[in-house]
Order: sequence, then structure tokens, then C-alpha cells
Amino acid sequence: MIKTPYLLFLGDAPDQLAAKVAQGIKDWRPENAVGQFRMEGCKADLGLTDMSLEEAKAAGAKTLVIGVANRGGVISQAWKKVLVMALEEGFDLASGLHNLLSDEADLVAVAAACGRELHDVRVPEVDYPIANGKKRSGKRCLAVGTDCSVGKMYTALAMHREMEARGMKATFRATGQTGILITGDGVPLDAVVADFMAGSVEYISPDNDPDHWDLIEGQGSLFHVSYSGVTMALIHGGQPDALILSHEPTRDHMRGLPDYTAPSLEELRDVALTLARVANPACQVVGVSVNTQHMSEDEAVAYLAGVEERMGLPAVDPFRQGAARLVDALAAV
Amino acid sequence: MIKTPYLLFLGDAPDQLAAKVAQGIKDWRPENAVGQFRMEGCKADLGLTDMSLEEAKAAGAKTLVIGVANRGGVISQAWKKVLVMALEEGFDLASGLHNLLSDEADLVAVAAACGRELHDVRVPEVDYPIANGKKRSGKRCLAVGTDCSVGKMYTALAMHREMEARGMKATFRATGQTGILITGDGVPLDAVVADFMAGSVEYISPDNDPDHWDLIEGQGSLFHVSYSGVTMALIHGGQPDALILSHEPTRDHMRGLPDYTAPSLEELRDVALTLARVANPACQVVGVSVNTQHMSEDEAVAYLAGVEERMGLPAVDPFRQGAARLVDALAAV
Repeated sequence: MIKTPYLLFLGDAPDQLAAKVAQGIKDWRPENAVGQFRMEGCKADLGLTDMSLEEAKAAGAKTLVIGVANRGGVISQAWKKVLVMALEEGFDLASGLHNLLSDEADLVAVAAACGRELHDVRVPEVDYPIANGKKRSGKRCLAVGTDCSVGKMYTALAMHREMEARGMKATFRATGQTGILITGDGVPLDAVVADFMAGSVEYISPDNDPDHWDLIEGQGSLFHVSYSGVTMALIHGGQPDALILSHEPTRDHMRGLPDYTAPSLEELRDVALTLARVANPACQVVGVSVNTQHMSEDEAVAYLAGVEERMGLPAVDPFRQGAARLVDALAAV
Repeated sequence: MIKTPYLLFLGDAPDQLAAKVAQGIKDWRPENAVGQFRMEGCKADLGLTDMSLEEAKAAGAKTLVIGVANRGGVISQAWKKVLVMALEEGFDLASGLHNLLSDEADLVAVAAACGRELHDVRVPEVDYPIANGKKRSGKRCLAVGTDCSVGKMYTALAMHREMEARGMKATFRATGQTGILITGDGVPLDAVVADFMAGSVEYISPDNDPDHWDLIEGQGSLFHVSYSGVTMALIHGGQPDALILSHEPTRDHMRGLPDYTAPSLEELRDVALTLARVANPACQVVGVSVNTQHMSEDEAVAYLAGVEERMGLPAVDPFRQGAARLVDALAAV
């Protein structure tokens, strides 16, 4: 569990895109983002107050989050100077970088000396159990995609925000590094050892109130041959009551797999529901979330209307239209 | 890659069952089993020649394989004495124990001093790639089960033996610890990190002759919620041309999951084939392998005849009847 709120470290980000993890934190958990720390030459700006370490500390920040990609896969000496000072000022550090904070001997030594924690969110911090498949109380929703990177996390976060606004009991359960940094907790599922994948999903989504919903962050796709095992573990470990189908209609092949095309929403519905009902016979597909970012408004509206008619399910782009209709469908379960 | 042939270490096994890994090596790769090494009080006997380390060395053995479960999860001092002597005599060590040889400082030190290798087959020894899904040359067969531990490895090994006897080109590809110790090579799939599971299966089953078959060892079940992600990775990483359905008809619940019952063979066929065709549109289900060990001969024969009629596929128990009809079906692909 990463201590919140955060000071968001943007370093010397070459452009706005390099800071997309920090952007996600600011967009989805503004209450976690006390301010931003930018170094000379930084080309990203989240529109947060620029703060020194002392100012952020005084404003209550507990963790410096590296919300930016680094250049060349190396934690530079310029960054190091800030990170060491942050530890000395009493901040924990959290990072989703490929190269780990815990592999940097100087950071490890300073953290130990100062009694601070280093969180590498790509590395599991828990010894997860093997899944036991026992029925848990409370309800769970999972987005499953025709492909990777079609908006499953966005859908879950948008639904969560809508549910909170309605006063429904809901928790977003992160299963990837960005989600973990946004919320401060979760499982980096793609880094978990095979035997414990489903168990880790059970672990992050325990028994809860009967009217509480976990919105479990989806990963991969049953139809993406590189990552389908991860998706499978989410479906069985998550034992969802409700599935949302996620799709991006303009791709001509699966992400990273030039020889593969995405399945239809009907194919996804049939195989995902069959498998989900192994763990939860009551599971239903309740809606479709479409990422229409590469379509015009007219195209998007027409496409969504077509899906809705074909599938008999509410079909929305939560980015254009909000997640209200998906939440209506969930509330009816 | 573990150097063959082996001297099989049975230690102080309390009964025959404790030596089942050694038994598997002796049954399936007798050419790899030069002899057995038994300590005082050993209650297991494979019917191999009892050998001292020197005798086994003279007979050509290269690796001492710990083919036995240890008591209480500790490598005892009595064992240690033999293992250290074996390293000094020039043997590598290989083990499938939960507690690792490489965690024993004395064994690590002696192995380094003697230039010998320690193989813990529960630990991946390769940095596997992420699966790329590219079509590979050669053919592949995978057994998929209604449950775990229904005879998938046995089926693949029996088919492999039959194919070798017929002079067909075939390789058994191990994906679990017993399979790895039997053949000396493979991937301990349940210990691979999630993102690399499918890639590890691609890795162990590379391009091959057009008329060569890889018999990939199955794991878990798409319907077993604890391990279904591992099975999924085998189906997509293996890109099988042929599936064998494996079943044990007498279980009243899924292994380790008292609240779950096994699917029908038809359910397994439909979902496994749908998913397999994502990676290989030409994939077919070619036969059914039934573990009838808890049935009488009459019951078994009647059950198999019923399955064969229902499914329109050859249905055999390879232990009772051999794998010839499954291999016939494969040869017809």
C-alpha cells in the first residue's frame, strides 16, 4: 500500500505523453495529487501547483511518485539527486519504471537510513495464495476486451467515479502499474508467477458488503495470444457478476500481432461468458464500452447505435458520453 | 538442459509412492536411468540396479536426479552427505523439490568448487520472450483436460512412444517438473511470470520439419479456476494443430475445489477449440483420452464406447489400451 497523497515527479519529461501515468493520477485521483515537481527542461505540465519538496511536505504529501517515463531506461544522476533528497525529507518513493528503485544501491541505502519505503509497482509485494474458487460476498464487475489497450481501465475508472457520485458502494481494484499508482494499491498481475495469478485476483477483491461492487481492472484479452492467460486468471479469480465488453473498432490488427484480427463482440461475449460462468454461474454481460477516439462524433454515434441494436446491450464510449448507462446496467444486476 | 543419463536418487523414501518422479523417469525414459541409489531404510525400489556413486559414474551417469519427495520439506543432513559426494564425484544434481538446491549454501559452494551444475526444475532457467504468435512450421498436439491431473502428461508420453515405434518424427515437450526430469528439458510453466507464459511455450516448441509433431505436455484446465490461465497460455503459445480431450469420469468435484464439478467433454471441446483457433484456425479435436483407473474393465469399455459414439471421436484409455488409435487420428491430420 502506497501512502497518499502524492507529489508527482515529472522530472525532465520531453513531452506531455511521457507523463501519462502522472496525468492518470491527476485525472482520476486529484485528491491524491498535492502538486507537481518539475526539473529544468521539463516539457510536461499537469496544471498542478509546482512545489519544492519542502512545500509538498508542508502540504501533506507522503510519497514522491515517479509518474513519468525515463529516457534510455536509466535513472539519471539528475533524477537521483532529487530522489535522494526526497527520501531525506521524509517521502517514500513509488515508481512504475522498468528499471527498479530497489536495484539502485544508493536509493536503497538512503531509504534504509531514513526509514522510508521504495515501491516498485512492477514487482509484486505480496506472497499471493493459489486461488481457492470460493464464492465471495459482494459483487464484482470486469471489463474484457476484444484486444489489449482498448480502454478497459478507463471504463472501470469512469464507472467507479459515476458510482461514487451516486453514493453506490464501489472500489476500483487495480491490476496494472498505472492503476496501482493511481489508487496506491493493487496487484501487478503481469508480473505474478503463473500459479498465483488467479489467487492474486481473489486476494485484491475479498468478501464485501452484498451491495458493494468491485470494479476490477481488466488486462489483455482472451483473444490476444501473448496475454490471454492473464485475462483468463482475471475472469476466474475475479468471479465477476457482470462483464463489460470493451472494443476499439478501427484497428486493422491485434496490438503487436500483425497476423491477427480482433474477434467480433459476439465472439468475445460467448467465450468470455462461458468461462466466467465456471466461477460464477450468475454472471451476465451487461454492456459494451467502445473506444471511439479515432472516429468522428457522427461515426461514433452511428457505430454505438448499431452495436446496441445488434447486441441488445447498452453501448457507450465512456470518454464521450460518460459511464452512466453502464452503471445503470450494473445497478439492475 | 539436464545432462543424461541419470543415477536416480531414492534416498530414504518411506514408500513407493514417494519415488513417483523416479518411477516416471524409469517408465518413460529407461535409457536415461542407469541405476538407482538407495539409502538405509529406503522403502522404494524401481527394480533398477543398485549402484554406488562410483559404479554409476563408471556406467556413464552424468546427473544424480532426486526423484523422490523429501520429508518435512527439509533436505536432511543424511541426504546432504550423498549429494556433496556426488558433486565431488563429478555428477550434476537435478531436483524437483519445493526447497531448492540453490538455496543450500553448502551445495552451491561445492558445486562451484567442482564445476558442477545444480538444476532446480521448479525454477525457470531461461529469460523467456513475450509470445509473438507467429505461425511456426511443424505440427503440434496438446491434451486439454476437463480437470487437473486427469492424465494429460501420460497421454502425451504414451502417444510419443507409439509415434517413435512407428518411426514418426515426434518430440515430447515438457511443461512441468516431472516431465522436465523425465526428458531433461522443458519449461516449469507454473513458475513462469504471467507475461511470459505463452512465450515460454513458443520457445520450447520452435519451428520444425513439416511432418514433425511436438507433443506438448498439458497443464491445468480451462475449467479449473486456480490454474486456467496456465492452460490458456499453453493453448495460445502452443498453437496446436490437434487437441486431445482428457477426462477422468469418476470424480465428484474438481481437484482441490469441492464446490466445482467438471464440465462435459462437449463443453470442453467447444471452448478449447474456439480459443485454439485464435492461434491456429486449422486446429481440430482429434480424440479423447479417458483415465479409467477407478472403473472396472467392463465399465471402462462401455464408457469409452459411449463417448466415442456421442463425440464421433476415437476414445481410449492409453493406460489400458495404448495410444495407437490416438496416433492414428494424429497421423490423419
